[in-house]
Amino acid sequence: MIQKDENTEKYIVREDSGAVSILTLNQSRQRNALSSKMMSALIFELNDISESPNIRTVILAANGPVFCAGHDLKELKSISSCEAHAALFAQCSELMMRIVTLPQPVIARIHGMATAAGCQLVASCDLAVASETAKFATPGVNIGLFCSTPMVALSRNIARKHAMRMLLTGDPISAEQAWQMGLVSDVVAEDDLESATHALALRIAEKSGSTVKIGKEAFYRQIEMPLADAYDYAASVMTTNMQTRDADEGIGAFIEKRHPTWRHE
Amino acid sequence: MIQKDENTEKYIVREDSGAVSILTLNQSRQRNALSSKMMSALIFELNDISESPNIRTVILAANGPVFCAGHDLKELKSISSCEAHAALFAQCSELMMRIVTLPQPVIARIHGMATAAGCQLVASCDLAVASETAKFATPGVNIGLFCSTPMVALSRNIARKHAMRMLLTGDPISAEQAWQMGLVSDVVAEDDLESATHALALRIAEKSGSTVKIGKEAFYRQIEMPLADAYDYAASVMTTNMQTRDADEGIGAFIEKRHPTWRHE
Amino acid sequence: MIQKDENTEKYIVREDSGAVSILTLNQSRQRNALSSKMMSALIFELNDISESPNIRTVILAANGPVFCAGHDLKELKSISSCEAHAALFAQCSELMMRIVTLPQPVIARIHGMATAAGCQLVASCDLAVASETAKFATPGVNIGLFCSTPMVALSRNIARKHAMRMLLTGDPISAEQAWQMGLVSDVVAEDDLESATHALALRIAEKSGSTVKIGKEAFYRQIEMPLADAYDYAASVMTTNMQTRDADEGIGAFIEKRHPTWRHE
Repeated sequence: MIQKDENTEKYIVREDSGAVSILTLNQSRQRNALSSKMMSALIFELNDISESPNIRTVILAANGPVFCAGHDLKELKSISSCEAHAALFAQCSELMMRIVTLPQPVIARIHGMATAAGCQLVASCDLAVASETAKFATPGVNIGLFCSTPMVALSRNIARKHAMRMLLTGDPISAEQAWQMGLVSDVVAEDDLESATHALALRIAEKSGSTVKIGKEAFYRQIEMPLADAYDYAASVMTTNMQTRDADEGIGAFIEKRHPTWRHE
Repeated sequence: MIQKDENTEKYIVREDSGAVSILTLNQSRQRNALSSKMMSALIFELNDISESPNIRTVILAANGPVFCAGHDLKELKSISSCEAHAALFAQCSELMMRIVTLPQPVIARIHGMATAAGCQLVASCDLAVASETAKFATPGVNIGLFCSTPMVALSRNIARKHAMRMLLTGDPISAEQAWQMGLVSDVVAEDDLESATHALALRIAEKSGSTVKIGKEAFYRQIEMPLADAYDYAASVMTTNMQTRDADEGIGAFIEKRHPTWRHE
Repeated sequence: MIQKDENTEKYIVREDSGAVSILTLNQSRQRNALSSKMMSALIFELNDISESPNIRTVILAANGPVFCAGHDLKELKSISSCEAHAALFAQCSELMMRIVTLPQPVIARIHGMATAAGCQLVASCDLAVASETAKFATPGVNIGLFCSTPMVALSRNIARKHAMRMLLTGDPISAEQAWQMGLVSDVVAEDDLESATHALALRIAEKSGSTVKIGKEAFYRQIEMPLADAYDYAASVMTTNMQTRDADEGIGAFIEKRHPTWRHE
C-alpha cells in the first residue's frame, strides 16, 4: 500500500464527482512544471484511480494561465549526476505510461500553453479537449535539450513532418491546427471548456466501465502489432467481451429498444 | 472449388461491367448487417474476383438508406457458446483481410451510415468515396461491446485521438471530417456518388492490372516493416516490376509520347 | 576520402551560406530526373555535409519549372539487366536513407511538380516548405511501374487512403492538401518561397547543432519501436543530452533570462 504523501494536495488537487475524477495540476506559479514531486503526486493519484472502479473517466486539468510547462528546469539544473537525471526521465516516462495503462480513459483539458513534457502529457492522454486559445509546443531545442521523450508521444499522435517542425523549431501550434493534425480530439470556445470537457467525461462515464476498460487496453496493444496479428488478438478480445454481463445486457437492451443498465462493479 | 451458395444473390448483388465489378450489400431491411451469411457471400465473391484477372477494380456499395450497420446483433445474441462467437469474429477478420489481400483495389462507395464493422469495412478498403451525407461511427461501446476489431482498421487509417474519440463516445463523424482524418479518399455530392465512384474505378481499371497488383501487395507489406527493410523490399519489388512486359511498354510509350497498350493477361 | 567528381557541379549546385547549405538540383531540361549521376552527386554532397559540423541545416531546392520528376526513364529503359535495375533502385534507396541518417535537418523547398522519386525526395526530408503552386504525385502506375519505393516514404508521411489514392491514380495533390495530409510542413506564397525557407533554415541553424543532431537521430529510431521501448530509449537519449555542454548552457541561459551561446564544435 502506498502512503499518501503529505504534500500531495499541494501539487495535485483531486475532485471526484460521481464517476468522474478531476485531477488539477496546482502549481500555477511554477507553470505547473513536472517536478519530481508533481510527477509523484500525479502517479500516486493515477495509481489510486486505477484501483477505484467507481471512477470511470479522468479529467486532467490545470490551474493558472499555463497548462503545463514541462520539466522543472531548476530542478534539472540542480541535479549533477547522470543517474539522477536518468531517474527523473524514467519517472516522467512512468507517468506517461501510467496514463496509457490506466484502465479508465483520461481526457486532457487544455486552456493555455502545453509545452515540452506538458505537450507530451496531452499527447499521452486518450482524449484532449482544447480551448481555442490553447497552444502546444516542444521547445526543448531552444535550450539545448531536445524534446526526445515528448516526441515519443507526439510522433504517435501527428504526422512526421508536423512533429518534426514542432521539434526542430520549438514553434507553438494553435488548438485548431492541433485538431487538424490529431493532437487533440476536440476544440471548443474558451468559455465552454469546462462544461464541454465535463459533458464528454460524463458521457463516457455512463458507458459500461468494463467495456471501456477492455477497449482501451486493446487499443494500445493492437496498434503495435502487424495487421494479421492485430486481428487475431482483437477477435479474441471481442470474444471475451461478448461473454461479459454488460455486453449481454447492452445487446439485449438495443434489440429491445430500452436503455441498458450496466453492472458498474 | 467452392460451390456457389444458392442464397448468395440474396445477400450480395454482383454486377460486372467491363473490368469493374460492383458488389452491393443487399439486405437493406437488416441495414446490411454483416451476418454470417452476408460475410460468407462477400468472401465468396471476393475469392472469385481474386481469380478473375479480367476484373481490375472492385466497388463495394450498398442498397437501402444505411451502408452497413456492422454485425448482426440478433445473430450475435442468439449464439451462446464462446466458440461460436470466436468463429463469427474470425470470419469477420477473414473478410477484412480478404479485402486487403485481394489483388485488385477495392473502393468503398458510402452513401449513408457506416457503423461498427461497417465502418471497419470502409477502413479496410483501399479507397473510399463518400457522399457528403455519409457518416461513420464505431458505437459498440454503447451496447457494451467495444468495437475492438473495427479499431484495428480504424486506428491504421486515422490519428489515435480521432480514433479514440469515435471508439469511446460512439459519436459519428461526417464525410468531410472522415476525409480530413484519412478515413475516406474522396468526398462528392450525393448526386455524383455513383458516377464519381465509377469514374474512379474505371480510371484505375485502365492501368496495367499486373502493375496495380504488384503495387497493392507491396503497399501493405512494406508498411509493417522498419524503414531500411521496407526500402530493401520495395527496391526488389521495383526491380521485379521493371522486368514485366507492361513496365517495358509503359515506359516506352511515355518516351515515345503515345498511349501504352497493356497486356491485361 | 571520396574524390570530388568533375561532373558534380553540373548535377548539383551547392552554395554554403554560413551554417546553411543549399543543394540545388540543376538539370532543369531533364526535369531534374534522378539519374544515376544525379543521385551520385547528391549522395556525394550529403556525405560531405555529414562530416561538416559547420553546416547545421540543408535546403534541397531545384532549378527550372519542375522540382524533380523522379527516375530518369530513358536511363531505366536503356538498362537491360535485372542487376543493373536493382543497382539503380538500391542507389535511390541509399540516397533517401542518406537524408534520413544525415545529422543535419534537411528542408525540401518545392516550387513546382515533385513526382515519383521526386515526391519521395520531399517525403524523405525532415521538413518541406512548398510554394502554393507546388504539386505532388506518384504517377508510376500510369507507365506500368508502380511507385513502390516512393510509397515507402509517402506512406510514412500521410494517411493510408490518401497515399493509396495518389499511388493508384497518379493524380497530383496541391500544396494545401499536402500540408493537411502531412507531406509538407509549410506552405507559403510563391514569392516568399526562397525567403521563408531560408528563414526557417537559419532559425534551426541557430540552435545547438549537437542538440539537433541528437534529436533527429532519436526521432527516426524511436518511431520504429513499441511505446515502452521507445520511452526507455528516449529517456536514455535525454540523459545523454543533459550531460552535454549545450544543454547545461541552454538551461542556464533560460533560467538567467539571457541568450545561450552554443559551442558549435
